[in-house]
Amino acid sequence: MENGSTPNWLKQRAFLTPNRIALISSIKQYTFQELWERTKSIAGKIKTATLHAESWCMGLLIKNTEQSVLLIHALQQLGISAVLLNNKLSAKELDFQLNDMGLKMVIYDESFQGKINELASWNSNVNMLSISTLQTFNETPFEQIETFSFEKVCSVMYTSGTTGKPKGVLQTYGNHWWSAIGSSLNLGLHEKDMWLCAVPLFHISGYSILMKSVIYGMPVRLYESFDVSEINYELKQGKVTIMSVVTNMLNRMMNELRAGDSYHENFRCMLLGGGPAPLPLLETCKERNIPVFQTYGMTETSSQIVTLSPEYSISKLGSAGKPLFPAEIKIMKNNKRALPYEEGEIYVKGPNVTKGYYKREEANENSFVGEWFQTGDIGYVDEEGFLFMLDRRSDLIISGGENVYPAQIEETLLSYPTVMDVGVVGIPSSKWGEVPCAFVVTKQKNVSEEELLLHCRQHLASYKTPKKFIFVDELPRNASNKLLRRVLKDWWKKELNQE
Amino acid sequence: MENGSTPNWLKQRAFLTPNRIALISSIKQYTFQELWERTKSIAGKIKTATLHAESWCMGLLIKNTEQSVLLIHALQQLGISAVLLNNKLSAKELDFQLNDMGLKMVIYDESFQGKINELASWNSNVNMLSISTLQTFNETPFEQIETFSFEKVCSVMYTSGTTGKPKGVLQTYGNHWWSAIGSSLNLGLHEKDMWLCAVPLFHISGYSILMKSVIYGMPVRLYESFDVSEINYELKQGKVTIMSVVTNMLNRMMNELRAGDSYHENFRCMLLGGGPAPLPLLETCKERNIPVFQTYGMTETSSQIVTLSPEYSISKLGSAGKPLFPAEIKIMKNNKRALPYEEGEIYVKGPNVTKGYYKREEANENSFVGEWFQTGDIGYVDEEGFLFMLDRRSDLIISGGENVYPAQIEETLLSYPTVMDVGVVGIPSSKWGEVPCAFVVTKQKNVSEEELLLHCRQHLASYKTPKKFIFVDELPRNASNKLLRRVLKDWWKKELNQE
Repeated sequence: MENGSTPNWLKQRAFLTPNRIALISSIKQYTFQELWERTKSIAGKIKTATLHAESWCMGLLIKNTEQSVLLIHALQQLGISAVLLNNKLSAKELDFQLNDMGLKMVIYDESFQGKINELASWNSNVNMLSISTLQTFNETPFEQIETFSFEKVCSVMYTSGTTGKPKGVLQTYGNHWWSAIGSSLNLGLHEKDMWLCAVPLFHISGYSILMKSVIYGMPVRLYESFDVSEINYELKQGKVTIMSVVTNMLNRMMNELRAGDSYHENFRCMLLGGGPAPLPLLETCKERNIPVFQTYGMTETSSQIVTLSPEYSISKLGSAGKPLFPAEIKIMKNNKRALPYEEGEIYVKGPNVTKGYYKREEANENSFVGEWFQTGDIGYVDEEGFLFMLDRRSDLIISGGENVYPAQIEETLLSYPTVMDVGVVGIPSSKWGEVPCAFVVTKQKNVSEEELLLHCRQHLASYKTPKKFIFVDELPRNASNKLLRRVLKDWWKKELNQE
Repeated sequence: MENGSTPNWLKQRAFLTPNRIALISSIKQYTFQELWERTKSIAGKIKTATLHAESWCMGLLIKNTEQSVLLIHALQQLGISAVLLNNKLSAKELDFQLNDMGLKMVIYDESFQGKINELASWNSNVNMLSISTLQTFNETPFEQIETFSFEKVCSVMYTSGTTGKPKGVLQTYGNHWWSAIGSSLNLGLHEKDMWLCAVPLFHISGYSILMKSVIYGMPVRLYESFDVSEINYELKQGKVTIMSVVTNMLNRMMNELRAGDSYHENFRCMLLGGGPAPLPLLETCKERNIPVFQTYGMTETSSQIVTLSPEYSISKLGSAGKPLFPAEIKIMKNNKRALPYEEGEIYVKGPNVTKGYYKREEANENSFVGEWFQTGDIGYVDEEGFLFMLDRRSDLIISGGENVYPAQIEETLLSYPTVMDVGVVGIPSSKWGEVPCAFVVTKQKNVSEEELLLHCRQHLASYKTPKKFIFVDELPRNASNKLLRRVLKDWWKKELNQE
């Protein structure tokens, strides 16, 4: 066999350990054999749905339900790449992705019927299929895939850049495989492992847990929503051993736990992604003996690529750690490798790194230097090689674990007739980590915050809507007219002091 | 990065976890950082030794010492493929391998000086370098290898076939990588794991433990010899969690343990290779709560490819288990896939399977059918897919974990002037599992067992020397003159009853 393929994951897993538990939701649980049988059934129904509209990819607008898990596996069984649509996006934002991918079909959870109706009204050629309608279909036989080729695209997830144009990140079977293997070499692999998934399945954070499940033969405890007290209760029971969180989730979990309270000793890894963690939070976890693994990763690296073990969480405070075994990082400054402690752009390399963005030749050319991917993030490494992140791509806002790109919000506000210029930055929020704040220059005096807010709500996911509008006469720009976001952050601090 | 490479293993491991223990011998222990520094030093000395005699490969005639571990890693650092010479072979047998590989240099442990003197007398062009002489060399700087390419040959180990001509099995970095990963997905990976190595480093069983050590970041407890009572004592201490054994070793360990005695509860895996295990041994282990993982593998699969978990050790008694996650097996009969329970030849497929034998075009053509490798072994799978081996390549004898090929012994005896015909089969031995027994037809009456034994000792490793000679008038052959070894086994049983 080629180095570049493995047996079909779910099929092989169901063959090797049919009776192990694969998935536990609030309602029921499946063994790998049951998951395999149910997946084949759903795949047969999708085959029926696509008989006259075959395509290499398909949109999924889903929630964290067992049905969604089946859909994700079923598309793999049919060799169809899944385009994971972020269900928090507005219909307009989703519309862009539909057209960018040229989707012919979207399978959706009924709870998004409203967005789907809007999308359908603009895209009469796209087949919108609800999960419950799909269930009524007959099953058409399909050829079982024996081998997953590492080069083949498994999933597509959209991410935005500084330009504001979202780009579809192509994640191959190889990317997911190596991500799972790299993680296991770092975190270890125990027979009793169970991974709690309360992060979205449409994000790499959630999707990657499903891949680990079939590759490791490990049960996933799936939560449809992030119910803090229920999850805290679960972690005290000793069944869940690993959980993926972002700072905001962990914060809320720690606040809900009573003083001196902790989790079961079986719980061995709180995998923390989505931006640097604040010191007090890490200290709280340390006091409670909760092992936090800080990580650095992105959609383009198919989950974490750098991780800090708990043994270093205090001595290397603020560090994201070292690369996974199959991966590498380097810091580049002025096209040279930076010295220890010297700031520069973070480059990453490894078999878990995307092969590129869909139909974005220019971005692909700009993002890769040989095998190295330029993250756009700024950081440094110390003399031992531990990575310290200074800034997510200078302007990126991470709000409750979601990436928010100022450029998109700025574009939206600029499309409003009376707005002349806009600059958006992240400002601290105790609940979400950061939230967007817009500095607005208007053409006339009588523009109200309310009308701008309404406009944003019509075009943007609610987590992207600025939580604060500040009207100014002019924006700070440098000689080449580049917006100076750091100055805006200073302005916000002054504003705060005046309030 | 390509799917087909990883960062340099030892270098990456020393970078990621410099302070973890890498190697513990009876004398001292090394962290990965120390192992890396010492390895670089030895590599620099080898570089000096090869300045005027570069070659893609080098012979190693070594024992299970820390020096040997350094040599193995040092050759990887220089990009030189290691030809692992079996130190139990006779000088004549080694000579064949030297010439077959075209070796220019052999680094050897002083304890094999006798064999080396013989080899040197026949191969004046081969540089024979003892480890202690190597130690006195200066270090020549060499370029560090950043990436291990999966296609590159890492090691070569000789194995024989039914024809009696030993063949060099090419094991790539990819083979070793995938073997380690496949094993970890099956056995799990614990932070406290420590693997005891008392199997030879020149065999894949031992060599593969060293590769797992750097890939997992796991210490190896290395034993120079198989000291039963010392090892039994070690396994009671709770530091060692995994050990590789063959049936004969496990038998001796169980015999040495006092009644009712067992190992520490941390000891979680006795990885048993080298042929089917007898039921009483498995039952003894079960009574003592010693978790035995039976395996099936060979030099060509770079360690085990099929493994039976202890949970099945009784319900699937006699089975070797199911394939590792990245691998597959099938049973072929008359060029068709056999039904469950139908006997046939075992075919294996996976990224841990060798890409072929060195300079053996015909054998390579005969051994591979597409991506499938024909093992020559006979077995069947049950309806759940568990493999049951019936016969190692009909004639293979496994004596104390070593493969013994009758054809080679027959060839040796046939070269003796008064011998006319010979047939060799394995006969049961309580100590070694099996030992070779030779049925001999002589040209005249007065040939003695003693002279045949002497002849064999001059040409064969001692474990290959027949432990029994039986003089007969004729050998049982079928119409096409093929030796009927099963009849010889029956003859042995009759002989036994007469004694």
